Amino acid sequence: MIIILKSGHTQSQLDEVKLIVEKHQCEPILIKGTFKTTVNVLGDDTQIDADLFRQLAGVEEVIRIAAPYRLASRTFKKEDTTINIKGVTYGPGHFVIMGGPCAVESEDQTYRIARAVKKAGANVLRGGAYKPRTSPYAFQGMGEDGLKILRAVSDETGLPVITEALDSKSLEMVYKYGDIIQVGTRNMQNFSLLKEVSKLDKPVMIKRGMSSTIDEWLLAAEYVLAGGNHQVMLCERGIRSFDARYTRNVIDLGAVPVAKALSHLPVVVDPSHGSGRKENVIPMSLASLAVGADSILVDVHDDATKALCDGPQALTPPEFEGLVKKLHRVASALDIKIKG
Amino acid sequence: MIIILKSGHTQSQLDEVKLIVEKHQCEPILIKGTFKTTVNVLGDDTQIDADLFRQLAGVEEVIRIAAPYRLASRTFKKEDTTINIKGVTYGPGHFVIMGGPCAVESEDQTYRIARAVKKAGANVLRGGAYKPRTSPYAFQGMGEDGLKILRAVSDETGLPVITEALDSKSLEMVYKYGDIIQVGTRNMQNFSLLKEVSKLDKPVMIKRGMSSTIDEWLLAAEYVLAGGNHQVMLCERGIRSFDARYTRNVIDLGAVPVAKALSHLPVVVDPSHGSGRKENVIPMSLASLAVGADSILVDVHDDATKALCDGPQALTPPEFEGLVKKLHRVASALDIKIKG
Amino acid sequence: MIIILKSGHTQSQLDEVKLIVEKHQCEPILIKGTFKTTVNVLGDDTQIDADLFRQLAGVEEVIRIAAPYRLASRTFKKEDTTINIKGVTYGPGHFVIMGGPCAVESEDQTYRIARAVKKAGANVLRGGAYKPRTSPYAFQGMGEDGLKILRAVSDETGLPVITEALDSKSLEMVYKYGDIIQVGTRNMQNFSLLKEVSKLDKPVMIKRGMSSTIDEWLLAAEYVLAGGNHQVMLCERGIRSFDARYTRNVIDLGAVPVAKALSHLPVVVDPSHGSGRKENVIPMSLASLAVGADSILVDVHDDATKALCDGPQALTPPEFEGLVKKLHRVASALDIKIKG
Amino acid sequence: MIIILKSGHTQSQLDEVKLIVEKHQCEPILIKGTFKTTVNVLGDDTQIDADLFRQLAGVEEVIRIAAPYRLASRTFKKEDTTINIKGVTYGPGHFVIMGGPCAVESEDQTYRIARAVKKAGANVLRGGAYKPRTSPYAFQGMGEDGLKILRAVSDETGLPVITEALDSKSLEMVYKYGDIIQVGTRNMQNFSLLKEVSKLDKPVMIKRGMSSTIDEWLLAAEYVLAGGNHQVMLCERGIRSFDARYTRNVIDLGAVPVAKALSHLPVVVDPSHGSGRKENVIPMSLASLAVGADSILVDVHDDATKALCDGPQALTPPEFEGLVKKLHRVASALDIKIKG
Repeated sequence: MIIILKSGHTQSQLDEVKLIVEKHQCEPILIKGTFKTTVNVLGDDTQIDADLFRQLAGVEEVIRIAAPYRLASRTFKKEDTTINIKGVTYGPGHFVIMGGPCAVESEDQTYRIARAVKKAGANVLRGGAYKPRTSPYAFQGMGEDGLKILRAVSDETGLPVITEALDSKSLEMVYKYGDIIQVGTRNMQNFSLLKEVSKLDKPVMIKRGMSSTIDEWLLAAEYVLAGGNHQVMLCERGIRSFDARYTRNVIDLGAVPVAKALSHLPVVVDPSHGSGRKENVIPMSLASLAVGADSILVDVHDDATKALCDGPQALTPPEFEGLVKKLHRVASALDIKIKG
Repeated sequence: MIIILKSGHTQSQLDEVKLIVEKHQCEPILIKGTFKTTVNVLGDDTQIDADLFRQLAGVEEVIRIAAPYRLASRTFKKEDTTINIKGVTYGPGHFVIMGGPCAVESEDQTYRIARAVKKAGANVLRGGAYKPRTSPYAFQGMGEDGLKILRAVSDETGLPVITEALDSKSLEMVYKYGDIIQVGTRNMQNFSLLKEVSKLDKPVMIKRGMSSTIDEWLLAAEYVLAGGNHQVMLCERGIRSFDARYTRNVIDLGAVPVAKALSHLPVVVDPSHGSGRKENVIPMSLASLAVGADSILVDVHDDATKALCDGPQALTPPEFEGLVKKLHRVASALDIKIKG
Repeated sequence: MIIILKSGHTQSQLDEVKLIVEKHQCEPILIKGTFKTTVNVLGDDTQIDADLFRQLAGVEEVIRIAAPYRLASRTFKKEDTTINIKGVTYGPGHFVIMGGPCAVESEDQTYRIARAVKKAGANVLRGGAYKPRTSPYAFQGMGEDGLKILRAVSDETGLPVITEALDSKSLEMVYKYGDIIQVGTRNMQNFSLLKEVSKLDKPVMIKRGMSSTIDEWLLAAEYVLAGGNHQVMLCERGIRSFDARYTRNVIDLGAVPVAKALSHLPVVVDPSHGSGRKENVIPMSLASLAVGADSILVDVHDDATKALCDGPQALTPPEFEGLVKKLHRVASALDIKIKG
Repeated sequence: MIIILKSGHTQSQLDEVKLIVEKHQCEPILIKGTFKTTVNVLGDDTQIDADLFRQLAGVEEVIRIAAPYRLASRTFKKEDTTINIKGVTYGPGHFVIMGGPCAVESEDQTYRIARAVKKAGANVLRGGAYKPRTSPYAFQGMGEDGLKILRAVSDETGLPVITEALDSKSLEMVYKYGDIIQVGTRNMQNFSLLKEVSKLDKPVMIKRGMSSTIDEWLLAAEYVLAGGNHQVMLCERGIRSFDARYTRNVIDLGAVPVAKALSHLPVVVDPSHGSGRKENVIPMSLASLAVGADSILVDVHDDATKALCDGPQALTPPEFEGLVKKLHRVASALDIKIKG
């Protein structure tokens, strides 16, 4: 951490800075430059709140040098985290294909689609029972009944299931019936939910907030790691930009190699929600594999024209099967394994 | 709602569109243009999920003409909503000054600051007992103890108190001790929380999400209105942009006249969290009044160098007093009343 | 400038850093922290290209502490720059109202509108003869004929005129006929144009690029100052955001106090192009004054329904007159003078 | 085009709308909905300026249905445009690798790097003689001397050369010495330059503006096509977002399939300028191929630690050679040809 002092700061203002640094068992190093005077903080400053300095009258700016997260960083843990769930491995050298309906709509629909994605080559089943919807008038999900269907279908097909929790109550249910807990983009900074997830012993996938920086995304992971749950995956799902005419969001594929350089956690891409249009799902899935993601999460629906949620972005089972074949060819060109 | 068909769509694809329109008690009007064919929807289409059309194979794009919210719109209710709480009025012709510490830190600190802001001319006390913090290692608020302090201080000073709820549990407490419930920027799309707030009979202020569109902000209000709570205020608090070097966020003051044109709800501005730096708080407060906001929410701290939260943006009591005097002069020039 | 070294950097990589620092007559100060080693640069580093360090194998990140501009900064020149043009003063304590048509369309139209804005209380006439249009099929301006009209109208009304140059050829004409040269948002980083403007002896107003940071805006001003033209004004005209449904851009009023704190140059706001809708122009003009801008630039048209350019944002002369009256009242409440 | 009228519009306001529609040889169709009345425009409305309606008192909003560009669209020309230059083909089924130094620094440097990229498998040489730099104090390019070097090196190696023009003067030189003209991101809306380029008979590559929508990008291409130059390529080079800490821009790979669906023009990706850091260049190059781009443009430097421009993002020749090998493997998996 480097603290830049204001021109014309007083000695006592400088002393306030030094005092706070020392209170945190760090050492302040004073550097008088031509234009600015700075205090470099020596020691472990990752957990000092930078605002403690920013609010001082003599301070102009505070710049973090070490990342504000610890457990999520490569500095803390060099080797890649590998997550194993019922025979599926997220981690280096592997690529996991997750597919299924955006929302569970009925037992029959879920069975049909799950069997189709399994046949096409998916490794994990996706499906939502609790849906966060922008409008109060849109379909809000089947709730616990939906989770029971997912559990039964997962058991029958042998595909582990990933499903989203929205709050304390739904988390309890998702933990009971699901295999991987999904925290959605709108909940990335729902710190109450992150703390509850951190107490559980099932893997969690945290979607990046739609306007979250990479540091904030890793700090959300830090909340879960700090509470004791080390099975954390990150998911890039598209960020908000100035142009939403043709794609709902901009998928920031460049964030994948960055997150993998900064952190040891697996990184997933969601090309369906990131685009919002199925024409982009196949090329962006291939690009996700090529850019180094560990997994993708794809919406599949066998009658998208009647889907209750996000139909425009769902692939049909034959389209999904075509995608899986291409993924196998590209993975093979890049020496990456896909199960099944 | 206007549904644009793809070039080369089939008759049966068109029939699917018509069928869905008719199922919602609306009438489809077909228009064949030179480049595109469209279906205009006649009738009340505010509650039709546009994705029902987007996912059809023959549909290229769906454009909403009526706003997707009803209860929050001026179409539904022409006259401005006025909210009265313990003698303070939010609504046309009035301007309400809310001030206080970002976080309740102790009984003594809260009393001192509350008396200071009251003396300076504040109408409502602000203060947080539950703090959403980006880092798990930052101060997370005093919880119920903080709320008890706020209640006692509010009763003594006669200033109603606004305070934030983060989740079900804290909402129960905030409802018990507070006068106005605040929903923060990170919770604007926490739909579980919005639904619970909608069942309560105390006023609620919904901060705009940091990358939420104006429509999404009004849809968040719609969640609360639709559940039966009509005492809703909106709060612009700064949106995320490409330049965070000098101000943490960009306060979108242009959203104030837009929100007031679209909706009948009062609109507040938070110049403190919107800027993140105190040098900007006074000019942006004056600009908020000039642009037509109904109220501002200002962080005040009498020893900001020791504040546990967001100190860099807090005004001192004398600075706050100077601001209130300027606000009175500008309000008077604009024929707007400020209480006290 | 602070250079953060990579973990595991070698001695020779460190030596490369030091060598470059020393070549620029600065002194490298090595600080070994717990997580990172840094090199602080002592001396005048404002003109060192940070990429010289970033491209070294041992360097992780380079952080500028002093601003990358010199002549535009308050560090270089403490007192506010005042610009005088034919009896109008831009600078502290004054507020200048500029108004007129977006584009010159005819002699008659320009005379009519100029007389109307003068009568209403404008201090400077605006009008464009060269129009940058997103579509090649839109009206591109009257060119030199338009400038001749502006010159004649300016002479008759006594209002100095501000008008935009797009390239070398139009700059020659604008310099010949205009009083203040406008560089538009799309040309803020047209460095060829900035260099040519820097050789001229007429005032120039540089509009902020629609996605330019405040630093980039000041660097554009630096191009003009560095070439020898010291009569530079900055203009905030709205930045691009994720929501363009109701306002074309987001006017970043918070950038006004920031730019005035960093730089000594006058700051203008354009509430017309910033909003793109006339309903917002009056409130945003009042807010511009309240936030501390030195001037505003307002589109006025007496028959906006026939305007050839940007009609939706133009005020009518009576609306403009009403605005000027309100501006006088607010200016008076804030002890600011408006001429006339 | 659909024109939405304001609630409470008058008959004469509606007549104004109809009149303008009819003046443009189109037919107005009136639709009275429950909440809003609209006028659908029948006929070729691509070249009507939507502001002509927006500025009418009775109009609330205007929505374009047909794209505002014609010549750039697939509606106008269904089959993909193929560009051939000295034996290199941009178009379906091919993938072109362009590589070279960001800036020409000397004859020796350019020869060395050109030979290296040719040996590694590049098809086209890149190099800049005119550099747009944010700071007036940074290296601005070698100018005509640099172009002469590029021409000689291109002739010797047989690699066609792509190089950037900044203004009229440099365009004349670039046309004389170069094979493909590059219009940079800051000039995408330099309409004077686009018009001059449109008169030339050499291919041009237009980089997307850093905050340009896809429609604006295609309208920039339209300027060149409308002037008569049909050899136009688009280039995605990264857009501005809220997080520039780890990558300078966000490369919008999803824009590639969108642009190829809307337009028949070839689409290039620049993974070097888009990231600003070499660690991301290899994965983003592979992803560009996988997502369907026709070409990539990669910075290569054999002594990046001494590069005068953008060194941090340049690959070394061996890194570039490794990338080309991987590109060949992935291209082969996707049935795409790379020359050489």
